[in-house]
Amino acid sequence: MFAKNFSVYRSIITKQLVNLPAKKLAIKGHRSIPCSLFAQERHYAQPASQDKLIIFDTTLRDGEQSPGVNFISDEKLEIARHLSNLGVDVIEAGFPIASQGDFDAVARIAKEIGPLMHGREKIGKPMIIAGLARATEKDIKRCYDAVSLAPLHRIHTFLATSDIHLKYKLKIDRNECIKRAASAVAYAKSLCDDVEFSSEDSGRTDKDFLCQLLGKVIEAGATTLNIPDTVGYTSPKDYGALIKYLIENTPGGHKVVWSTHCHNDLGLATANTLSGITNGARQVEMTINGIGERAGNTSLEEVVMNIHTHPSSYPVYHTINTELIYRTSTLVSSLSGMVIQPNKAIVGANAFLHESGIHQDGVLKNKQTYEIIRPEDVGIFSTNLVLGKLSGRNAFRSRLEQLGYSNMNEDDFNKAFDRFKNLADAKKNVTDHDLLALIFDQVTTGSASRFDLQSIQVVSGTRDMVTATVKLMDSSQDQELIGAAVGRNGPIMAVFGAIQQLVKRKIRLLNYEVHAVSEGMDALGKVVVKVTEDVDHSVSEADSNPQEHVIDRAIKPMIDSKGKTKLAKSTYHGHGTDVDIVMASAKAYVNAINRMFTSEISEASQRNSLEDRRVNI
Amino acid sequence: MFAKNFSVYRSIITKQLVNLPAKKLAIKGHRSIPCSLFAQERHYAQPASQDKLIIFDTTLRDGEQSPGVNFISDEKLEIARHLSNLGVDVIEAGFPIASQGDFDAVARIAKEIGPLMHGREKIGKPMIIAGLARATEKDIKRCYDAVSLAPLHRIHTFLATSDIHLKYKLKIDRNECIKRAASAVAYAKSLCDDVEFSSEDSGRTDKDFLCQLLGKVIEAGATTLNIPDTVGYTSPKDYGALIKYLIENTPGGHKVVWSTHCHNDLGLATANTLSGITNGARQVEMTINGIGERAGNTSLEEVVMNIHTHPSSYPVYHTINTELIYRTSTLVSSLSGMVIQPNKAIVGANAFLHESGIHQDGVLKNKQTYEIIRPEDVGIFSTNLVLGKLSGRNAFRSRLEQLGYSNMNEDDFNKAFDRFKNLADAKKNVTDHDLLALIFDQVTTGSASRFDLQSIQVVSGTRDMVTATVKLMDSSQDQELIGAAVGRNGPIMAVFGAIQQLVKRKIRLLNYEVHAVSEGMDALGKVVVKVTEDVDHSVSEADSNPQEHVIDRAIKPMIDSKGKTKLAKSTYHGHGTDVDIVMASAKAYVNAINRMFTSEISEASQRNSLEDRRVNI
Repeated sequence: MFAKNFSVYRSIITKQLVNLPAKKLAIKGHRSIPCSLFAQERHYAQPASQDKLIIFDTTLRDGEQSPGVNFISDEKLEIARHLSNLGVDVIEAGFPIASQGDFDAVARIAKEIGPLMHGREKIGKPMIIAGLARATEKDIKRCYDAVSLAPLHRIHTFLATSDIHLKYKLKIDRNECIKRAASAVAYAKSLCDDVEFSSEDSGRTDKDFLCQLLGKVIEAGATTLNIPDTVGYTSPKDYGALIKYLIENTPGGHKVVWSTHCHNDLGLATANTLSGITNGARQVEMTINGIGERAGNTSLEEVVMNIHTHPSSYPVYHTINTELIYRTSTLVSSLSGMVIQPNKAIVGANAFLHESGIHQDGVLKNKQTYEIIRPEDVGIFSTNLVLGKLSGRNAFRSRLEQLGYSNMNEDDFNKAFDRFKNLADAKKNVTDHDLLALIFDQVTTGSASRFDLQSIQVVSGTRDMVTATVKLMDSSQDQELIGAAVGRNGPIMAVFGAIQQLVKRKIRLLNYEVHAVSEGMDALGKVVVKVTEDVDHSVSEADSNPQEHVIDRAIKPMIDSKGKTKLAKSTYHGHGTDVDIVMASAKAYVNAINRMFTSEISEASQRNSLEDRRVNI
Repeated sequence: MFAKNFSVYRSIITKQLVNLPAKKLAIKGHRSIPCSLFAQERHYAQPASQDKLIIFDTTLRDGEQSPGVNFISDEKLEIARHLSNLGVDVIEAGFPIASQGDFDAVARIAKEIGPLMHGREKIGKPMIIAGLARATEKDIKRCYDAVSLAPLHRIHTFLATSDIHLKYKLKIDRNECIKRAASAVAYAKSLCDDVEFSSEDSGRTDKDFLCQLLGKVIEAGATTLNIPDTVGYTSPKDYGALIKYLIENTPGGHKVVWSTHCHNDLGLATANTLSGITNGARQVEMTINGIGERAGNTSLEEVVMNIHTHPSSYPVYHTINTELIYRTSTLVSSLSGMVIQPNKAIVGANAFLHESGIHQDGVLKNKQTYEIIRPEDVGIFSTNLVLGKLSGRNAFRSRLEQLGYSNMNEDDFNKAFDRFKNLADAKKNVTDHDLLALIFDQVTTGSASRFDLQSIQVVSGTRDMVTATVKLMDSSQDQELIGAAVGRNGPIMAVFGAIQQLVKRKIRLLNYEVHAVSEGMDALGKVVVKVTEDVDHSVSEADSNPQEHVIDRAIKPMIDSKGKTKLAKSTYHGHGTDVDIVMASAKAYVNAINRMFTSEISEASQRNSLEDRRVNI
């Protein structure tokens, strides 16, 4: 929805290519630009003593696997645009085979974000767009069709390699595993020069078997080898030792880029990733805010700021625009509904707040006594230029530009300005935080969606009697829906009840959260809800007491009609922002319902079963 | 407010003492039990190959330094009781010199929690109660007076040692620094056998000077030496190397226990702590959920579960009751208002939730393919025994007992049962999460406080016109206060407006958050607010546009009438729980205001300036 700046990358790419001994130099069109360009940079573009660290962001693939996180296409595009500005080298845009929706989003990112050069001056080339594919021709072809719309693109294919996985999951032996991996890579290579291979569950794979397999994979043409710590239980020492061993003992291991992919189950993802770098890895796979399944992935911002703060402690340098970290973090938190705790490193609300008396005294006497990263290094604004009711279009536009929204088209700008004026009516001081919340919200609500919230009215007398009236527009039938509900648990639940009646679905509220965007009694409230369609869950009477019964809250796989496990991602998040928390709640609830309906349409339009959608590396 | 089980510890302690060559064996009363008992355990109680790791929890001291976190006395006691049950070896209960309130809380914990043996069977002794003191006689004496009410107690004194601190903060030279540290420790030793010394900003202290100083400190009688990474910017390699160097090069270094104290500014606190252990540290200082200033302290649960998961990778064993981790984490999050992000390791809501299709498929086929820590290992209950409207006192009591509340006195039980019945009227299924929220809430609201929320009534017609009527009881004047306010930003802000008028203070809302305790439209909502008394903050007109002005949101030190920097901790959190979020918000707001008034009374009754209250290690 926001205008994208289709910068011309061609001349830059061409200039770089003349120095490269790559096989496919002829530029026939952007689809044939060698995608191994990047993988080879390590050998050709590094400064004297340090290698360039390749930052690989998988917020849109592994990050989206966080329970209840479902990005819509416009949101993915906006995140990809921010990651491009941030200076990310490779983005994993999705898993194209998973569904038509996933494919379309990857293709759109490849086409619209792939060529962008804005903010990438010091990197000198656009972002590589990667897609994930299992080790099958069908997956790989589908992936290629989506990513190849970008000037620089990569196919990322994977296979489990540990005995436990081979035996229980894949039911194949080691030889068959090597054969499958090598032929998948060879096929990918026939389409694209830049091929990454991941060995799932490397940590529990026999090391010498892994070296043998990876040697064959290199022979088949892989340019990047990724070693995921799938279950997140390794230690920095063991993970570093594994990387080192593999580099040294894999035939051809010195010709490729080795990559880390860590999970945070024991709180060590950042340390493990850094240990990987120390031991020879030159690509690191991470997500913004460390989102991802379970305890999440490695936090991009933590690894980058470690290297930034200790430039001589690691054998690498980075080209991330660190001053955009905070803004990107806020965007991802906002659109994913994944809250950042106040004591989160680098991007938590308290990360740069001091409250110790002695400490503050120290800060006053000599700033160097305590502060090492300055808030401005990661783009945290402690001083806010504030807009108000009387601020005009020019003031608004110039503020947006300073916040990184210089390329907004007129239509989007007008919508944003209207929203700003509405907000300024309700709120005296409109801060940068408010403006970003407003813009981020527009990414989501500006998208085509089935239900549009028109108005709500709540009449609450006493606590036991709250009546909510809700007006929705149903775009699928171009029909206005009006309904009311009486609630006993306050105005918000009454509003949810009314909406639920209007959309004619039984919806189960899994989570509800509110966060103030800024300070004050007129602060914007941001509401995040998580919902699922209500299906019968096992309720059984407890043995002794007839008033007690057991509810099993664990997410359960569903079994489809053929007895096949259907492992649906059936929870949906929604978010909404308003100075009135009741209104913000209504927006969030409708947003989640829209995601549910969108997802159902996407699933219905394709033949892949849901169990294909998620992957574990 | 909850009855504490004053277990008899004497016989256990006595039994242990016979094996100890400690100097002060005679038991004249619990104040003379040698407090070095614990520090010596390393030499006498360790199994063949591994040392016992001493778990030192500083949630109530360093954790409470989180911006806006102010525990009231009953809350501190409840957290200390949970930590004792959890099996924590040493608790830093507070900083007794800071204020009368701090002193009283430490003394109460020493007296009431210090003797408890419940859940500590495998440890064989009660928790050591430590207090913090600067390196002055006055501080140390005050600390001793509070902690010595516990059978096992420790004085923890500290001094900055880096040149930058000596020069800018303390304005002393290295010789004077050694003299002050040694004489402080000697004085502490004259009161108590168990003395810990911390060198503030060790990371930037000249190593050989540090060895020299610590050698003198050991000579003076210190039994534990703590090496804080005050600013949180070290790496596992550097921090481990520092610990190793100090142990090897400090005269007498092999006679004492070395301790880690890490901060999470770069996301490495857990890794740094583990590296300290690998390199010889046998005590680790941490907080529950990693709360603390900035990005917080090391997370107790992460370090413990690393050792638990990889028992042979570290030269230590632990005696924590891991199945109480989740409950303790929930308590601390609840009472501190410090949210846990869903992707937090070990205790985050998603930590044990899987949503990947392939992954879930793996879980089904063979659990071992992915899960290493089982949710029940840390006490996460995936199956809930549910109570309802018709559940009687017996069912309620037996459920509470299973949740660890077996020692509740009749008065507290009756209050809790009344609350449960009220909740069951509004909510069909009362889950374990609900019960814990209810009990945790009772810890806070059961305490003596100035304002008691009697009722609220909200009449909202359209969004622009919401009228809130609030009834408060002011216990200081035994007076009922009734007031109303009209709000434009929804019912919650109208309620806040009415309360603000009633308490006759101008209060600035710094933060507002809501979290659902469980699922469903009738879920309990937990509201956390942060407030500060509204003082003029710098507002200056921006140069160009008269509609823009600058607000500086950074916390600023205040200058008192004598020109001395007054670095007040002037933000207060409050929390409240209800099925109606408007009601929960009102409770939270009143709770924060009560903390503000309590703090003011505590400050007024003592002569220590606020700048003494906070410390940086």
